[in-house]
Amino acid sequence: MKLSALGEDAVVAALTRALPCGRDVSIGAGDDCAVVGGPRDQWWRLLKTDAVIEGVHFLPDEKPARVGWKALCRAISDIAAMGGIPEHALITLAVRPETKLAWVRGLYAGLRKAARRFGVSIVGGETSRSPGPAFISVALAGRVERTRCVTRSGGRACDAVYVTGRLGGSLARKHLDFTPRIAEARWLVEHFKVRAMMDVSDGLASDLPRLARASKCSYTLDPKLVPRSRGCTIEQALGDGEDFELLFAIAPRDCAKLEAVWRKKFPKLPLTRIGALIRNSSSVIRHSIHGHDHFA
Amino acid sequence: MKLSALGEDAVVAALTRALPCGRDVSIGAGDDCAVVGGPRDQWWRLLKTDAVIEGVHFLPDEKPARVGWKALCRAISDIAAMGGIPEHALITLAVRPETKLAWVRGLYAGLRKAARRFGVSIVGGETSRSPGPAFISVALAGRVERTRCVTRSGGRACDAVYVTGRLGGSLARKHLDFTPRIAEARWLVEHFKVRAMMDVSDGLASDLPRLARASKCSYTLDPKLVPRSRGCTIEQALGDGEDFELLFAIAPRDCAKLEAVWRKKFPKLPLTRIGALIRNSSSVIRHSIHGHDHFA
Repeated sequence: MKLSALGEDAVVAALTRALPCGRDVSIGAGDDCAVVGGPRDQWWRLLKTDAVIEGVHFLPDEKPARVGWKALCRAISDIAAMGGIPEHALITLAVRPETKLAWVRGLYAGLRKAARRFGVSIVGGETSRSPGPAFISVALAGRVERTRCVTRSGGRACDAVYVTGRLGGSLARKHLDFTPRIAEARWLVEHFKVRAMMDVSDGLASDLPRLARASKCSYTLDPKLVPRSRGCTIEQALGDGEDFELLFAIAPRDCAKLEAVWRKKFPKLPLTRIGALIRNSSSVIRHSIHGHDHFA
Repeated sequence: MKLSALGEDAVVAALTRALPCGRDVSIGAGDDCAVVGGPRDQWWRLLKTDAVIEGVHFLPDEKPARVGWKALCRAISDIAAMGGIPEHALITLAVRPETKLAWVRGLYAGLRKAARRFGVSIVGGETSRSPGPAFISVALAGRVERTRCVTRSGGRACDAVYVTGRLGGSLARKHLDFTPRIAEARWLVEHFKVRAMMDVSDGLASDLPRLARASKCSYTLDPKLVPRSRGCTIEQALGDGEDFELLFAIAPRDCAKLEAVWRKKFPKLPLTRIGALIRNSSSVIRHSIHGHDHFA
């Protein structure tokens, strides 16, 4: 069976079954980050790895500094999705031997810019030869207070579902320049009990079902409410992916306060209630748009 | 300027200059692992990333379980080189969509086998599409007691230089099945003041000068003393690389005791004194064999 016939979620499920996992691991494969720490630790450690590949995540003629920014910010976005603080990055780079030093320097300029902006130390990595496309993998470690760590799986039936920003059209515009929502996520976990959270990377149509499934819930979604980037259709907003906005669930009693203070704190970034988690049942309100599958 | 014309060390030097680095980082880019921790912490954290690429580190028809073993054990070997204990691994995998699930399952079987053998938890990772060769990047976190952490840079003039095992011929034989020297390294740092250490991955001819340079020393090396794998020439033992043995420096006064107890503790693994660190000077005893350069 080829991976392309199986689809990404099935491949990941097949591979992450029965992985060796010690008792110090609170959350292993399957969430935005892995979480290391015990029930008495004040701080938990977050671990994440994420790769961008020439021809998949960026085009060969793209400015290397934008590629570097994106490579690090994708991983930072996953730390944000757990409510965490990014700390230490390692960069694995594989490029053709005929690559120009200027290209690699440009890449590192983008990596450094993102690192400085979000307080990340670039502590090492590896440079190797690639016989094919350029490959940049970022490993990022961070931390989060145990009491503030948010997973995908804590949502409950009746929770309201919110998304930040506007969705869709990212590949044509901002996907190389997006801002990971570290500030917003930290503010959220410091002021509210966020029950479940993730970042929207494969499109809401893929990611909301993942959050609901991890929380053992179904969901409702009103596609008309989904905040769209200018010029985008509902289909694009649901399916394009690479938005790197926050998708989260919160108790209905917190909604009024959240919406009021959010507007004051982040006046430029929309926060939109798009649906709800509901009791798991077979009669799910479904939509027909699909998000990004890495092997499709 | 192309990377192939510069050589690996110059590329790494150009890229690692002026990286953002916080005060909690004891050792950034340039050693076997990055080290996070302060002068009062009992344990320091080790971070490492390492990649294997189809067509560079393994052939397309290689058994996937052996590739998985190698991918994780390379990073474990770097943790050993610091005297540390490997703990948590993240796997980044990029493969062609037409890759068979059986291949990826085999790869994970090898990863799991190595993880169990060395007490590593595989806590997550990422699976993506590659338009070219298969790419497996391992990010590994570990820990080491602050007082036992060994870098490349602590060597002093007159220190004796040792290497474990036998060198050379790895690509034809063991490079996919090697045993990272975790047990030996832990024993060394628990019983001796190891001044500088690294693992031999690019060949002694590349790696010994790196250790000496990091320690601001020159070195002597008697090529005739270098322990060779069966059937290997001195040139192969010095230049082949992928040995994943330990190379370390220790005070001369500790040598007699080290050699005596090593033989009892690890009777099957040779330990050989191959040279010494000497005062930095221009009159270095040099040899004409070169190790592996990733861009040459």
